[in-house]
Amino acid sequence: MNELDRFFHPDSVAVIGASEALTSYGTRYIQALLDFGYEGKIYAVNHSGNEVLGYKIYRSLLDIPENIDLACICVSARFVADILRDCLKNSVKAAIVLSAGFREFGEEGRRLEEEVAEIAKHGMRVMGPNCFGTYCPGGKITIVPGGGFPQQAGGTALILQSGQLSEGITGRSFGEGVRYSKVASYGNACNINEADLLEYLMQDEETKVVASYLEGVRDGKRFFKIARTNAGGKPLLIWKVGLTRTGAAAASSHTGSLAGAAAVWDAFFRQTGALKIGSMEELIDAMVGFSCLPEGCGRRVALVSGGGAGTVIGADACETSGMEMPDFSGETIARFREVLPPVGTSLKNPLDMGNPHPPLQLLRSVLEITAANDAVDIVVIRRIFFSIKTGKIFSGTTAAPLEEQEELLQIPVDVMKKFKKPVVIILPDELTGVENIDLEEDRRKIRDYFFAHHIPVYPSEQRAFIALSRLAAFNTTRLNGAAMTQDTPIEVSSRGRAILTDIIKTSSTPVLDELQCKKVMKEYGINVTEPVLTRSREAAIAAAEQIGFPVVLKIVSPQITHKSDIGGVRVGLTSHDDVSRAYTQIMAAAAEKAPEAVIEGVSVQKMASPGLELVVGVSRDPQFGSVLMFGLGGTLVEVLKDVAFRIVPLTRQDAKEMIREIRAYRLLEGYRGQPAVDIHYIEEMLLKVSTMIENNPEIREMDINPLIAYGNGAIAVDARIILEDGAIPVSGE
Amino acid sequence: MNELDRFFHPDSVAVIGASEALTSYGTRYIQALLDFGYEGKIYAVNHSGNEVLGYKIYRSLLDIPENIDLACICVSARFVADILRDCLKNSVKAAIVLSAGFREFGEEGRRLEEEVAEIAKHGMRVMGPNCFGTYCPGGKITIVPGGGFPQQAGGTALILQSGQLSEGITGRSFGEGVRYSKVASYGNACNINEADLLEYLMQDEETKVVASYLEGVRDGKRFFKIARTNAGGKPLLIWKVGLTRTGAAAASSHTGSLAGAAAVWDAFFRQTGALKIGSMEELIDAMVGFSCLPEGCGRRVALVSGGGAGTVIGADACETSGMEMPDFSGETIARFREVLPPVGTSLKNPLDMGNPHPPLQLLRSVLEITAANDAVDIVVIRRIFFSIKTGKIFSGTTAAPLEEQEELLQIPVDVMKKFKKPVVIILPDELTGVENIDLEEDRRKIRDYFFAHHIPVYPSEQRAFIALSRLAAFNTTRLNGAAMTQDTPIEVSSRGRAILTDIIKTSSTPVLDELQCKKVMKEYGINVTEPVLTRSREAAIAAAEQIGFPVVLKIVSPQITHKSDIGGVRVGLTSHDDVSRAYTQIMAAAAEKAPEAVIEGVSVQKMASPGLELVVGVSRDPQFGSVLMFGLGGTLVEVLKDVAFRIVPLTRQDAKEMIREIRAYRLLEGYRGQPAVDIHYIEEMLLKVSTMIENNPEIREMDINPLIAYGNGAIAVDARIILEDGAIPVSGE
Repeated sequence: MNELDRFFHPDSVAVIGASEALTSYGTRYIQALLDFGYEGKIYAVNHSGNEVLGYKIYRSLLDIPENIDLACICVSARFVADILRDCLKNSVKAAIVLSAGFREFGEEGRRLEEEVAEIAKHGMRVMGPNCFGTYCPGGKITIVPGGGFPQQAGGTALILQSGQLSEGITGRSFGEGVRYSKVASYGNACNINEADLLEYLMQDEETKVVASYLEGVRDGKRFFKIARTNAGGKPLLIWKVGLTRTGAAAASSHTGSLAGAAAVWDAFFRQTGALKIGSMEELIDAMVGFSCLPEGCGRRVALVSGGGAGTVIGADACETSGMEMPDFSGETIARFREVLPPVGTSLKNPLDMGNPHPPLQLLRSVLEITAANDAVDIVVIRRIFFSIKTGKIFSGTTAAPLEEQEELLQIPVDVMKKFKKPVVIILPDELTGVENIDLEEDRRKIRDYFFAHHIPVYPSEQRAFIALSRLAAFNTTRLNGAAMTQDTPIEVSSRGRAILTDIIKTSSTPVLDELQCKKVMKEYGINVTEPVLTRSREAAIAAAEQIGFPVVLKIVSPQITHKSDIGGVRVGLTSHDDVSRAYTQIMAAAAEKAPEAVIEGVSVQKMASPGLELVVGVSRDPQFGSVLMFGLGGTLVEVLKDVAFRIVPLTRQDAKEMIREIRAYRLLEGYRGQPAVDIHYIEEMLLKVSTMIENNPEIREMDINPLIAYGNGAIAVDARIILEDGAIPVSGE
Repeated sequence: MNELDRFFHPDSVAVIGASEALTSYGTRYIQALLDFGYEGKIYAVNHSGNEVLGYKIYRSLLDIPENIDLACICVSARFVADILRDCLKNSVKAAIVLSAGFREFGEEGRRLEEEVAEIAKHGMRVMGPNCFGTYCPGGKITIVPGGGFPQQAGGTALILQSGQLSEGITGRSFGEGVRYSKVASYGNACNINEADLLEYLMQDEETKVVASYLEGVRDGKRFFKIARTNAGGKPLLIWKVGLTRTGAAAASSHTGSLAGAAAVWDAFFRQTGALKIGSMEELIDAMVGFSCLPEGCGRRVALVSGGGAGTVIGADACETSGMEMPDFSGETIARFREVLPPVGTSLKNPLDMGNPHPPLQLLRSVLEITAANDAVDIVVIRRIFFSIKTGKIFSGTTAAPLEEQEELLQIPVDVMKKFKKPVVIILPDELTGVENIDLEEDRRKIRDYFFAHHIPVYPSEQRAFIALSRLAAFNTTRLNGAAMTQDTPIEVSSRGRAILTDIIKTSSTPVLDELQCKKVMKEYGINVTEPVLTRSREAAIAAAEQIGFPVVLKIVSPQITHKSDIGGVRVGLTSHDDVSRAYTQIMAAAAEKAPEAVIEGVSVQKMASPGLELVVGVSRDPQFGSVLMFGLGGTLVEVLKDVAFRIVPLTRQDAKEMIREIRAYRLLEGYRGQPAVDIHYIEEMLLKVSTMIENNPEIREMDINPLIAYGNGAIAVDARIILEDGAIPVSGE
């Protein structure tokens, strides 16, 4: 038994804070459990009162004669720690803290929450605080506003910090036919966080699809690892909010979550195959799709419409969503010609039947011809008046008779079964006035009928195609997921780690100089130009002649990190005289522009031949840890921000994809007569950098700028590393 | 009286094609008019039958004893021309051709449509064919499925080609409280097109807002001109479909419209201030907003929420839509502290009241404090259970009593009136199951109540903020619209036009060479490097010495348009010898690579100093005519497609904005120590190019590449012009 099972299938529940007042949260909780039909034992605990809803009120958990599976705590924040200590004493292994007033509420709340987290470490798991807890039809447990939630279980799990949205999302999605295995509102996540729940649900047999609403993640590295391990397993839908500046500020006030940078979250989605959701509608629409079609679907859509205008809307929505609308073959068109009139129709894809209430046999024929087409993965139907009531209003006397209603609804189901091909229906609420509420009722009934037959129904073209694009994306991940989860071991000698450790020991500053950086990089197999440190003009000239012209001279000083800016770099030196002059200039510039800097000398290195200038960088994200960046070098790219990110560690697929993701990728392939560069070599280099970063957690930031790429190979010409705060025993800054 | 008035306020209507069969389209049309309460005279015309719905059936229009205001033609396409000839004979000035089977239906249909268009030229206006016609409550006229449409008129006009969507959009939007002045489904637009209707509606006193669904435009130049003249006048909402490849293909099958390129349409929206709409939901949401707030609103939103999670969603939606959420002042926060508890709330913007059913007085106080804030343009309320029924379900015993329903709804209305500040409400359908249809009914009633008090209501944060961003965009255009419509006269001598006319007369090819281009450009005040045509090595050397080194030599041949590609350009020539050698190389290269080309000589020109390389181009859009492009020069920019477009003629504002629109604009301002370029000068140059294009309609394409920009001025170094097909009497190609 998993330790989180108790939160969803508890044999007994103690509600601490249930008072005789029926409006108290604890009492409402008991009421909700009763309404929902909870079958285990219920105990009420409070500092006063005798009885509530027929249950004796115990003064303390310790007074309860048996072991409790789950404690639900609804008392003021300041009493929560004491209650949890009682839980430990009574061997309670699971507690939900529903109370607010913790991390989201200033310094005092943060201290209380830390106390809760500390207590939890002594032998129990705690969900919350500041949450709504769990809904699990299988365990007959529900949240406070969920006494009337459906008893029927389904394959969708939903995890989210928010309480109100646990009721809001589930409440709305029930109507759309979504049924849940488990819902958990886990609040401030002081002990059980999103990573724990994700790991649990990925292994949970009741759960086929995992959906989540996230303001932030507490343990991003682990969450990322679990999500990536799952790639292609269960569909994982994530509605990540707080990606805007304003949203992030609101989130930190709401549950104190860190809202991650949008680019890093984009990397997360690319690397894990998790599906990025943008709104509640999108989330529910995707849930509906996966409820009906848990394997996802292909991208090739045939759109069958009962009118022309919608075909354009549908085609736009299809392409915008990344789905495809293949041309029909001549044979298919010929079959349509046999059944459809030539005027007022359009016999291509999208297909315009020209009539929103076609004769039943015609609709059946058209759908069958469409579904029989091998070039089509999915049949989408729009602007057919499946509600004959609605059709009557719009088409009056020419609409179908009401007796045909049942048979009309049967047609898409028959076609889907006959051809084993997904069918999706677009069914808007056509008339939204109060006086037409009966049409909406009719629409809901028809929608539920189709849901029951595994046909997803959506209110608009846009929403249908966005949902289908999620199903198709999952299908792709499912088919190709292996590469996403495949680690790419890079051979590493232990010398790189040893060299960095030595540098750290002796360094007085967290900023490593180019020579130090390149020493470490070289051990990780990264091709570098090797600078020689010289301490006199003569030594510089000798080094240059040793290395061979042309060479580059650079100032070396821990205080000078932007060497070019002070005139500390001279390139393209082709002779003894050039080097001599450059040495003087550099020393003069340093003396003038950085008089306090400790000058260790001047480095001399081979000047790399011209090639395509690239940049590789590493930075530290507060949620996901090290993040690798790749892009073209140069000012224009900097202005245009044409770069790609991946969370470390990278797989080979990550490296491949991030190179291809930048808009300027065509330049790497060779453009307008320019030669192509060695893309495979760059991939390798990205993997080596990733390995180096994984291997040396002290590295906070790193820049390789430029990395010069050629038709054969590439070379790091300059590099910089900044260590984590505290890596250096006494900071030199 | 405007000639289009007859389509909306006809005194008499003849329905041609109304048969005794009640299902015939013509008869259904008469029925719709009767149901709707049309008050003018109705005449039925058909080749057979005696009577329909109590009206005598005339054999011909010519048999009708009086003049007819509007003829509505519902007969087969092949009979339409004859009927229209009858119309002319009977002095009918307005006809709607509802029949399909024209341009959208192959070659034969296209011919029939041309015949219709030709007849219309002889003294009448024709709407259609392949349309639904008009709905106008003021004129008591409606479309066939519109017998039950609202009789109440409003300030919104809707024009669209599609018939089905004229019923679909209006049908849906009625429920959302939108009421119309006029709706016109104008079909294939063979005579009355979108430009006619737009011009009419911009002057129409019944109309305050114009909305449209467009697959394409028939007279793009005129439509653009009318829309731009209107900028800041009436809000113009355009849902342009067919902007994707698939959508454009579907559109051409639907009504045979040309779907414009997305970039040119984007230019259209920027230049006219028309509001770009992306879906039916967005269109209706914007209509709802403008129905309540026709002047638009500012961007600064205060969001008041009855729960925390939604504040993050709201903040994300706000920022994504381009709206703003200003911080509250300390004073405002202090006032909130006086009324709201500290735990479970968040007293900043977005404001979390922590409770979706607050006591009435508290809600009133919070809204008043919010609305009183001068830094706030608009108050958005979310997650307040305005339906107490809904609140009961979610919050049970703690929800407000039903007796408070009326007072609860009054609060936002009171606050809006007291502070004269727009209030917007987000009111989702919380429970969408069939069993909760009563909640949806309640929601619709509440929504209608708020609509009636000019409070827009939206179902989600995203939809609310997108709609508000349209209102804010219109408000900005309204306040700054003058600059958008202000022409920028550029002084032009008549010599430029004369020179081009001469070139056209003598040219044997539509491709003008650099010398010819620059001659014309110079007359339009465009700064150019002036090439001197030389026909011998000696002449080239002499010219170079005359001009001063460094110089550039280029091959001149009408057959060689890509001179660099064949080695026909030599740059950076700094001496007599350089020029001599370059001349030989160019002639040898031309002889080798383009042996058939007629070589006119070699041009010699001053080599421009290095600066920032820009590109200015002109191309011809099939819908809007000449389009000007601006961007940075160079390969990377080409790969990244970082360019801006504007429809010709440009205003000064267009020129200003298009320069600032490119992502690389920061380079023009001076970046990382690079000097800024003379942006004002570039603006002037764009206006001069625009004037030159307007002045010389024979120019189909033009490239200035590169235009080199400096801190002071800019110069066109190379240029190319391609003339319109047919401009040259006998094409040289």
